[in-house]
Amino acid sequence: MTKVILTANRSKRIEKGHPWVFRTEIEKIQGNFSPGDIVEVYDHRGKFLGKGYINPRSQITVRFLTRNKDEAIDRDFFKKRILDALSHREKLGFTGSFRLVYGEADLLPALIVDKFEDVFVIQTLALGMERFKGVIVDILKEIFEPRGIYERNDAPVRELEGLPQVKGCLYGEVPERIIIEENGLKLYVDVINGQKTGYFFDQKENRRAIEPLVKGAEVLECFCYTGSFALSAARYGAKKVLAFDSSRDAVELARENAVLNGLDDICEFQEGNAFDVLRQFYNNGKKFDVVILDPPAFAKNKQALESAIRGYKEINLRSLKLLKPGGFLITSSCSHHVDEALFWKIIESAAWDARVNLRIIESRTQAKDHPILAASEETRYLKFLMLQVM
Amino acid sequence: MTKVILTANRSKRIEKGHPWVFRTEIEKIQGNFSPGDIVEVYDHRGKFLGKGYINPRSQITVRFLTRNKDEAIDRDFFKKRILDALSHREKLGFTGSFRLVYGEADLLPALIVDKFEDVFVIQTLALGMERFKGVIVDILKEIFEPRGIYERNDAPVRELEGLPQVKGCLYGEVPERIIIEENGLKLYVDVINGQKTGYFFDQKENRRAIEPLVKGAEVLECFCYTGSFALSAARYGAKKVLAFDSSRDAVELARENAVLNGLDDICEFQEGNAFDVLRQFYNNGKKFDVVILDPPAFAKNKQALESAIRGYKEINLRSLKLLKPGGFLITSSCSHHVDEALFWKIIESAAWDARVNLRIIESRTQAKDHPILAASEETRYLKFLMLQVM
Repeated sequence: MTKVILTANRSKRIEKGHPWVFRTEIEKIQGNFSPGDIVEVYDHRGKFLGKGYINPRSQITVRFLTRNKDEAIDRDFFKKRILDALSHREKLGFTGSFRLVYGEADLLPALIVDKFEDVFVIQTLALGMERFKGVIVDILKEIFEPRGIYERNDAPVRELEGLPQVKGCLYGEVPERIIIEENGLKLYVDVINGQKTGYFFDQKENRRAIEPLVKGAEVLECFCYTGSFALSAARYGAKKVLAFDSSRDAVELARENAVLNGLDDICEFQEGNAFDVLRQFYNNGKKFDVVILDPPAFAKNKQALESAIRGYKEINLRSLKLLKPGGFLITSSCSHHVDEALFWKIIESAAWDARVNLRIIESRTQAKDHPILAASEETRYLKFLMLQVM
Repeated sequence: MTKVILTANRSKRIEKGHPWVFRTEIEKIQGNFSPGDIVEVYDHRGKFLGKGYINPRSQITVRFLTRNKDEAIDRDFFKKRILDALSHREKLGFTGSFRLVYGEADLLPALIVDKFEDVFVIQTLALGMERFKGVIVDILKEIFEPRGIYERNDAPVRELEGLPQVKGCLYGEVPERIIIEENGLKLYVDVINGQKTGYFFDQKENRRAIEPLVKGAEVLECFCYTGSFALSAARYGAKKVLAFDSSRDAVELARENAVLNGLDDICEFQEGNAFDVLRQFYNNGKKFDVVILDPPAFAKNKQALESAIRGYKEINLRSLKLLKPGGFLITSSCSHHVDEALFWKIIESAAWDARVNLRIIESRTQAKDHPILAASEETRYLKFLMLQVM
């Protein structure tokens, strides 16, 4: 098998369990290979480090599949890993709809599998994993006997791997609308046209966590997407929920979700840009008991960091100004490049500008079906804070 | 009223909401005062910053009670603050037994009030708060009509304030044993002789969080105190729980708690030093599905930090070595001086030495009846990690 030999001066990151070899860490490659092939990785002294797939086009040139030299990378390998991922989630209490495979954190780099009841949505975000797409579809069929399997490979990150952005049905039948259940709510999900794979399972536990804060409250939500936080607030006893998203499609689906749960008398969904909405309520002197912010990643890459920081600061500052004394700001960031410490600095700066003191009710991260690999900061991305204005 | 004027070159910490004035921040004091008196605090330009009580003997010379110049510090003030603390906890779902007042985070600096059903345990840990002890007892009587109120002021930190270490009954009748309920368990608490106020409410939500990890598991716990984690594990379906504490009294109470809950066939409590226990199991080749560590604060002050780091590293390293593949380490630190980042470094270093990769199941902190004041790192002290060995 082709051998990738690493440079002597690189860090111990890989030995500590990080799942990637960067191009700059490679000293030489012994043997021939095609992009996507499985290769062995050795340190400069000849010590075996693991096996993974290679793509010389990507900065992330090798992604590890195993650290065990004797483990073959075949159908059995993928089946075992997927069954491990399933039993992990079952142990943690997930049923019905959840993220079944979360890439590197399930030791299946660049593979995402979301389960929407009996429909599966997959993403193969690197060339090496793309090659096994057929095998993975086959395994999902064997384990779950699904109604359909859909590919949402219309992800820009695929371009870095030289892969086209595509989507489509890989097996069976995939309806445009699926009804999933989350924390007792029923929700329409559009896996074909929705964002990413159609739904954000990563906030499931956080939507549950807001329960004690919203009873009897007047709630404002920005970036509401298809309404899960807003509907959760209503279900947990909010008096009134006003929720905004800039996408007309999302707002329309959110309205249908409200009707589906009989919460359309409490939840009002409107098309609107968060920055404008927050400014307008402030100018009108309107106050809320709870403001919820669940924006998309403002910092998709390091270059966008400065403007992302300004964006987070502005929405959080404006939200703090809309809160009654004792009110709650429920705020998130899913930008990997904005780490916990930085997000805190932004919130503290917003609190300073708003002249409020904050009490931290809870600090949370992504749901447990998106596990975090300790050795890989990249698998830890969601910040979720429940704060009280004092 | 006596005025405390701060130096020009100090940081904005106080304006940001931090509740203390350090001795080194004081430029001058205008007017007379006795230690414990209420004083006004101004910046060097004469801007009012707040009112608090003063103790020139303490490095923490002033602790703020209010930032509002017009707010009188009288019985009504304390009653309002205690009712605010109560309604905050009621909103968050606390009933029966919980920490009612958590000092600075409830804007009542240096006051701790724990509610054990109808018995209250209080600590007044600074001279200025000690002065209001009678008022506080009186307010608790008025609000709760308690069976008894007990003072656990046998806390070494009182020495820094020139206060004696004392304990005793302040009102009514306080039995040596109280039965509290936590997450469905019944637990004897010894408020008179137990550690601190008799019980550690701060891990309540974390004891709940272990549920999915312990079903059918063989569990080892070190530093079990009176058995709450061990009994929680048993209640949530552990097959067998072995738990150790170095205090004979704690182990005896833990055994009684096991009997009280009908879990004495599953939980075995033994006297033992954690370091020895962990080494012995390792030498015997014993493996567990789950290891739980809930040690006392190894770093009581900054001077003890180095040896604390070594201590945390050793118990976590040894525990990791006792885990089966896929097993869980549930580990805590309540040392304020070991912050989250440092605790992580210790765990990562232990994982490296144990040659295991870790997956983070959940990262948590203290229960919500111990709120965190964003401006005061001192109110944020508990680290709680649920980790999986890969």
